[in-house]
Amino acid sequence: PNAYLAGLPTTIFTVMSQLAAEHGAINLGQGFPDTEGPRELIEAAAAALGDDRNQYAPLTGLPELREAVARGNRESYGLAVDPATEVVVTSGATEAIAACLMAVVEPGDEVVLIEPLYDTYLPVLRMIGATPRCVRLHPPGWSLDPAELRAAFGPRTKAILLNSPMNPSGKVFTREELGLIAGLVTAFDAYAICDEVYEHLTFGVKHIPLMTLPEMRERCMRIGSAGKSFSLTGWKVGYVTAPAPLAALVAKAHQILVFSTAPNLQRAVAVGLGLGESYFRALAEELRARRDLLADGLHGLGFPTLPADGSYFLVTDISRHANGRDDVTFCRDMVRQAGVAAIPVSAFYAPDGPEPPRNLIRFAFCKRHDVLQDALIRLRAAF
Amino acid sequence: PNAYLAGLPTTIFTVMSQLAAEHGAINLGQGFPDTEGPRELIEAAAAALGDDRNQYAPLTGLPELREAVARGNRESYGLAVDPATEVVVTSGATEAIAACLMAVVEPGDEVVLIEPLYDTYLPVLRMIGATPRCVRLHPPGWSLDPAELRAAFGPRTKAILLNSPMNPSGKVFTREELGLIAGLVTAFDAYAICDEVYEHLTFGVKHIPLMTLPEMRERCMRIGSAGKSFSLTGWKVGYVTAPAPLAALVAKAHQILVFSTAPNLQRAVAVGLGLGESYFRALAEELRARRDLLADGLHGLGFPTLPADGSYFLVTDISRHANGRDDVTFCRDMVRQAGVAAIPVSAFYAPDGPEPPRNLIRFAFCKRHDVLQDALIRLRAAF
Ligand SMILES: CSCCC(=O)C(=O)O
Ligand SMILES: CSCCC(=O)C(=O)O
Repeated sequence: PNAYLAGLPTTIFTVMSQLAAEHGAINLGQGFPDTEGPRELIEAAAAALGDDRNQYAPLTGLPELREAVARGNRESYGLAVDPATEVVVTSGATEAIAACLMAVVEPGDEVVLIEPLYDTYLPVLRMIGATPRCVRLHPPGWSLDPAELRAAFGPRTKAILLNSPMNPSGKVFTREELGLIAGLVTAFDAYAICDEVYEHLTFGVKHIPLMTLPEMRERCMRIGSAGKSFSLTGWKVGYVTAPAPLAALVAKAHQILVFSTAPNLQRAVAVGLGLGESYFRALAEELRARRDLLADGLHGLGFPTLPADGSYFLVTDISRHANGRDDVTFCRDMVRQAGVAAIPVSAFYAPDGPEPPRNLIRFAFCKRHDVLQDALIRLRAAF
Repeated sequence: PNAYLAGLPTTIFTVMSQLAAEHGAINLGQGFPDTEGPRELIEAAAAALGDDRNQYAPLTGLPELREAVARGNRESYGLAVDPATEVVVTSGATEAIAACLMAVVEPGDEVVLIEPLYDTYLPVLRMIGATPRCVRLHPPGWSLDPAELRAAFGPRTKAILLNSPMNPSGKVFTREELGLIAGLVTAFDAYAICDEVYEHLTFGVKHIPLMTLPEMRERCMRIGSAGKSFSLTGWKVGYVTAPAPLAALVAKAHQILVFSTAPNLQRAVAVGLGLGESYFRALAEELRARRDLLADGLHGLGFPTLPADGSYFLVTDISRHANGRDDVTFCRDMVRQAGVAAIPVSAFYAPDGPEPPRNLIRFAFCKRHDVLQDALIRLRAAF
């Protein structure tokens, strides 16, 4: 067996979700909405099933979805994208990340990552033989130290894998930070793989794709997610926007990883992208209200929250209630004693790196108001 | 960019399908049915969409589908399989192949392959750093030379990737051949990744999973495909059956490649597996009639066909009509001049290996009778 995979622990999302189920806890761990996405999409997906949409889709995706993705790039960010050569539909953003990395990275190349980071980044890099170079954001403000970022780049850097809006921190990178990243990407003749699955879920700030910065159009692979944009996380439909030469390589990686994605879901996502900016605004407003509900409740219980301008997630400092416990123990105890599941933030750091923060846990707030309120009542009883 | 991917040609299936579309040709190239799968599945998939089945499925698949896969293993092959620990649902067999290889192979390991082979095998091996060792079947009977097979195994062999029933040859490996393979797998302490996507599509012979042979239960990862079993190739739902320790590794690979597969399609596939043996028998009968229709027509035109006991495919010898052209040129000319697309069999050989046969082309017969008849009329006019 592959020794690295054999040594990889079960993903923390599965571990905490199982523990939550065992204890009848409210699951604010794994990030998925507990309400369904727009009826238009679900109906379109069902209709397409009855309508000859059940054999292989084209390798790079249904033309109607590629056109919708290109249109979305223009409407949301003013990016001109050729739907025929610059869009690749994937089986979710996870596959998109693997395919984008495979497109540009050779064994031995280095890839810059920013911690805390999503838990498939390190394993997928490892499986294709690349070496991660991690830079850390500094809590509580999740600030990025320019010198530290600079130090992660070197002659073997092939790419940076950037997640903004970011999971688990909720950070939305500023134009200034993006400018810094863009300068390094250009200076080191590297690429940027931009995991922007939460692009439409920002609260009071605007998401800026790195791809819109000067000289970045030709170096970025920008990843979007229908699951996150339309609250349908199970569909696993993602899309990569990239300059044609890179998109062609992403398509080849997709060909050998999965080949194509269910056509009825693709058609429905095309319908979803047609809902336009007003839909995304309403979705972001709704999520912002949920974040605020949870944040206010946590504050009242002595859990200060870190800034979270985007994504499904809110990180809180447990120091006042920890009594010497680390974040992992705290989360396990909280499931059992309070009946609420969250995710320890230390799970989002390289296991072989320096000691991660042990005082932070992540709540998913993409849940119904009554569920969040119920969770707060339970926490109030416990703390 | 990744030099290997950059050098990889566009898949022959896409090339020929595009050429077919340009020339209004009947596409007997890419293997997908031109009729839809069973209504029960399509209705179940649509119903599940409206029924809260749109967030992440469990990593290894919906329990109901894992149970259906386990039951299918028992009913079809007498294999006892634990649905909780020995089944992993994937986003199609292509992803399953990648995940199974990642589960057992380390960079530098060797994997035995049998040519002619499906066109993602070599690239995916290459991307995870494994070295292919190819053995060739000998046309026209697609016989396997035991000494040649033996010679492909060595101290660095980690696995064999076996496709039976086989694409493109239509060969169904016999119990004797499987015994030979099993002996080598055991002798070299290796694993077998068994791509059995056409398991239910055999004609007059019974498919034997390598996993059912002595000592093979613990060494095999057996891959099935809802796309092929239910004529719904676009759904991209596959399933791996493996002993628990291997299944756990396959699940980890799946986690970092895709994470999970659309739950509504999974539920529908569980319904499909419940249709039972009589459904599969009817499907195989229907495909057999199509194979015979095409084979008889080709014989009448001076195209001898090679034995094809399973799969969607029939290989024919073009020598009598080739006039010095190789199979690739012949296929291109046939699209333009006869209006029928097929796939040159030389595309199924390692590009850096010895000269492949140049006198064979592959037809997909998983098409309506009137389409096959129409194709034969066109071929008759041209030859
Ligand atoms: C794919 S399971 C994890 C879901 C998620 O994005 C998260 O909780 O961070
Ligand atoms: C995934 S496209 C190829 C379909 C197929 O299995 C074939 O034609 O060989």
